[in-house]
Parts: sequence; structure tokens; C-alpha cells
Amino acid sequence: MLKFDANSFLQAVGKEAFSKREEIENVVDAISQKGFKNIFLIGSGGTIAMMYPYEYIFKSTSSLEVHAEIAAELLVVNNRHLTKDSVCIFASVTGTTKETVAAAEFCKEKGATTIGLVAIPDTPLAKAVDYCISTGKEKHSFDTFFIHLQLLTFRFIHNHDEFPQYEKFANELASLPEGMVQAMEEFDSRAEQFAIKHKDTGYHMLVGAGNLWGNTYSYAMCILEEMQWIKSKSIHAAEFFHGTLEIVEEDTSVIIFKGEDETRPLAERVERFASKITKELFILDTKDYKIAGISEEFRKYVAINVNWALTSRLSVYLERERDHSLDIRRYYRKMDY
Amino acid sequence: MLKFDANSFLQAVGKEAFSKREEIENVVDAISQKGFKNIFLIGSGGTIAMMYPYEYIFKSTSSLEVHAEIAAELLVVNNRHLTKDSVCIFASVTGTTKETVAAAEFCKEKGATTIGLVAIPDTPLAKAVDYCISTGKEKHSFDTFFIHLQLLTFRFIHNHDEFPQYEKFANELASLPEGMVQAMEEFDSRAEQFAIKHKDTGYHMLVGAGNLWGNTYSYAMCILEEMQWIKSKSIHAAEFFHGTLEIVEEDTSVIIFKGEDETRPLAERVERFASKITKELFILDTKDYKIAGISEEFRKYVAINVNWALTSRLSVYLERERDHSLDIRRYYRKMDY
Repeated sequence: MLKFDANSFLQAVGKEAFSKREEIENVVDAISQKGFKNIFLIGSGGTIAMMYPYEYIFKSTSSLEVHAEIAAELLVVNNRHLTKDSVCIFASVTGTTKETVAAAEFCKEKGATTIGLVAIPDTPLAKAVDYCISTGKEKHSFDTFFIHLQLLTFRFIHNHDEFPQYEKFANELASLPEGMVQAMEEFDSRAEQFAIKHKDTGYHMLVGAGNLWGNTYSYAMCILEEMQWIKSKSIHAAEFFHGTLEIVEEDTSVIIFKGEDETRPLAERVERFASKITKELFILDTKDYKIAGISEEFRKYVAINVNWALTSRLSVYLERERDHSLDIRRYYRKMDY
Repeated sequence: MLKFDANSFLQAVGKEAFSKREEIENVVDAISQKGFKNIFLIGSGGTIAMMYPYEYIFKSTSSLEVHAEIAAELLVVNNRHLTKDSVCIFASVTGTTKETVAAAEFCKEKGATTIGLVAIPDTPLAKAVDYCISTGKEKHSFDTFFIHLQLLTFRFIHNHDEFPQYEKFANELASLPEGMVQAMEEFDSRAEQFAIKHKDTGYHMLVGAGNLWGNTYSYAMCILEEMQWIKSKSIHAAEFFHGTLEIVEEDTSVIIFKGEDETRPLAERVERFASKITKELFILDTKDYKIAGISEEFRKYVAINVNWALTSRLSVYLERERDHSLDIRRYYRKMDY
């Protein structure tokens, strides 16, 4: 596959990611034992989007109190729920995202317990938090973050007596990277065809819900807008019919991310509508992929990782077809504001 | 002013809205006395957007537990925080929004206490809830909902011993409609000029934060997309620099909603950036308007209402200049999906 090395992916997201399992469980167990009042999931852009699935999972699976907050907003708003009894979880690939680092320091000053997911240790975020889980390398770090967040989230819920299946889930998760590679291989030619067809499309609408809402928001903002400079609108499937539907025309590109959780019927409703109006409907459905080793009951949780892996195939082909590197920025970190 | 009658506005949003003050306070006092665990703010499209400012106000002013949830999503997700000890607040102009009515029934079945804001009594939402506050007429009902939500929100917070200024605030709020009319008059010609200049603009970016985030999201989706069929992207000011900034060019229409709460610096940061890149930057700042009778300490709370009123002036001129009625829908409630 273009720009993809299965061995290095399996090494990073498989072996290396799972080498942290015990460390993560120990961190969570120590915090659960000490006790806490609530959990804050904090990030900026791609990393707050990455937290949204886990906010959804907490809300739909556990009575633990959870808050997902944008770092820059948390810094200025006096959020009354953030106290010394909060557990704050952050992620940053580079470990240098200004607002995220500042938010980690802010939470620590409040006396909260802080956990950071970073690619490289010895970076500012790693130094600012009480517990740092490092992926060890930048490549594939989002895929690894997702797995680490799964271990963190479900371990907290397990310790709260609401996820007795933890052991089985965490064991099965180890087969996920293989399943992701398989899914990417199966999807690859569809991704390429999409990119060829849409290389000049100037606007995409992205629709998702449940634990795929974060990926939907992120793909629009952090990939299409930031990395390809293409206008895009992310819209929650539950909200689609309250406005955005009116701008769909027969040539409007509508991309629906379908997952396998309780909100699937919301995405299906958008699909029924869009299939009547536009010829440019593209469905990315995790259900189309087998993912060996993952039990039916856990598929909805790993749809996050599978969807993320599949969309990465769209990105590399858009990059090639549009001759627009995913790494070019014209403003971000290039000027002061 | 075009399509605006100050007397009927002042009658509806002033006199009639405030005639409900005692009723609202009695409802809240009865619920506070009985006790509750958390508050759910529930809506769809424009009415969930309307709830976001109050979610923000709760979070930044009170330790009460609050959740803002999209009705259609709440119906399918087993939200573990929604119990018989929840207070659920809904709004629907027509009282018939399918998902909102279904959500109210769903919450009532769970044993929660339900409050509905509707325009017309005897509609399905009015019948589904324990307490119904009716505006009595459809015209200006959002402006009235905002005031009723302010009374509800701050009364709950007051009863929780976190807003001793309630009496002063509620009294001052009665002068707000006059201040809104004054602000609309001052803004009117700018709104008209904007609409003339942008009648053919095919894409707008809307940026806001804090208690204006809901209005930002709503103006993009429910006005520009739904009522004018214009592509638009709403982006939170704290998130703007994590992707969306890259698509700003010198002719990109960027509209910033500036309010007066703690997040104002986030909007100012976007303003600094955008003013360097695009010639089509439009700032709508509540601070530019006097709003007689409202103390400095409360201005940030009424920025919601003032911003809403100002944007309504943009809408009527866009309607006229684009010869596109705000009432036309091509799909919503016109077809099954």
C-alpha cells in the first residue's frame, strides 16, 4: 500500500503500544484506589477530537462523571468541576502543543491528577504531568493513543465495577492492529478511486455520530482543512436534519462514517436521505471489515481505530492525486497571532 | 427597520416574556426544594444550540452537574447519568419537533422531572412535560426562550447558593428588550451593507466561543444553511487554529461573534489572525452596544440575547438581497427519510 509499511505499523501499534498495558493499568489502579470525583479529557484540535469517543464511551457505559474540554477554553473559563479531585488526561504527539501543555500545568496547579499521552518523552507535556505514557515515536502515534485511551478508559470503568469484561477486552485488543491492516488492504482501492474522482472537489460534508463523531470532526478539520486546504463541514448525524440537509445537491460530496454503536440508526437515516439526493455519497462502514479476534460485543469500541485507519488511506491518495503534501501549512506555527 | 415591529417585539419579549417570571421561579423553587442530581438541557438543531450558552453558564458559574444532549442521540444512547433524579429541560417553537417530543417522553418514562419551553400550549411537547412554560406566540419565541432560560438557569444556581445577585439580575433583565431594539437599530445599516456585499458569497466561516458558541453553531446551520442554502462552517474560536485557519484566503468571509465572557480573548486571537489574511472579516461585537439598564457584571450573560437579535438583522437583509425567503425548505418536513 502507498506510504504504508505493515511491519512498522504492527511493531508500533501492536507490540510497542501493548508493551505499555501493565504500566497503564498500574496508573489507573493507583488512581482508582486513591479515589477521584471526575475525569477530564482535554485536548486541542485533533487531540480533543480523539477524546470525544472516550467521553461517549464513559457516558454510555459508566456512571463516572466525565468532561471533555478544549484546552484553550479550559484555561480561561473557571470550570467549577475541575478540582483537586479531578483526573485530567491529555495527549499531544509532539508534546509541545502550547495550549495543551499550559492546560496540563493549570490542572496540576489546581491539584488534579494528570496523565499525559505523548509520542516523545522529555517533551514539555511529558514533564508537566504526574504520569506520562509515551508511544516512543511520532509515526502512528494517534493509532497508539487510541489504544492507550481504550486501556485507560475501560480500566477506569472496570475499577468502577461497570466493565467486568476488561481482561477479555484488553487481551482481544492485541489482535486489533492485524485486523486494521487487513481492513486497510481491503479498503485501499476504494480509497484510491475516491481520491482520483474527488481530486478537484472543493467541499465535502462529513457525517458521523456516537463514538465516531470525534473522527468525523477531526477528518474535516485536521485533514481536509488543515492538510489539504479543502472546505469541509462536519455535522453530527443527529443534527444533520436540522439545517445542513438543505444544502445537499446532486453533486454534493457527502461522506458518512458508519460505526457499530447505538447511534448507527442515526447514520443510516442520513444515508437514506442522502442516497436520494446526491450521486456523490461515500459510505465508510466499519461493519464491512472482519477484524479477526475481536468479539461482537467489543466491535463498537474498536470502530474508532478501524475508521481512523481507513480514513488514513483516503488521506494518502488525496495527497498524491492533488499533489498537495499532508505536511504543508501556510499559517499554523508559521506566524504569530 | 425591515420586517421588524418594535412594539410587537417589546410586547412579546418584554411584557409577555416577563409575565412568566413568577411561574418560572415557582417551578424552579419546587424542584430545588425537592432536590435533584443533575440537569439535562435537551434539544435538536436550533434548540440544542440555544441550550449551549446555558450549559456554559452552569459550568462556569456553578458546581451543579449539567449535560447538554442532542435529543435524537439521547434516545438511542443509554446515558448513565439520566435517572429519576434528573431535571430535563426542552424547547420547541412548534411543540412538535419529533425527536424533542420523543426525548421528553423518554425522560419522563425514566422518572425524570421535565420542563418544556414552547410557543403554543396544547402541542405535543407541552403535553409531554411536567411543567410547560409557554411564550404564547411563535413570533420572537427564541428571544423569549433565551430570557426564560436565563431565569431558569440563574434561579437554579441561586437556589444552589451560587448566585446571590439573582433578584437584581432578574429585575435588570426586564430592560433588556429595549436595549436589544436599540442595538438592532444601531446595527441595522451595517447588516444591510453586509447583505448587499455578500449576496453572492457561497461560503462563510463563523467563529465564536463561550456562551456565544451556540449562536455561532446555530447561525451557520439553521440560518445560512437551512434558510439561505449557503455553505458555512461554524468553528469554535479555541479550535480555529487547529485546522480551519489553513483555508482562510484573502477573499474568505470570516464572521466573528464577540461576546463579553471569559472566552473573549479566544475570539480576539482569531480576529488578529484573520485581519492579516482576509479582506472579508466581519466582527459582530456585543460590546459595541450600550444596553441600558444592564450592570457591567451581567453584560456577559445577555450577550447571548444581544448577539441573537443582531444576527436577525443580517438574516432579513440576506433574505431580501438574495431574493430567498427564510421560510423555504426543499427537504425538511417535505420528504421521508
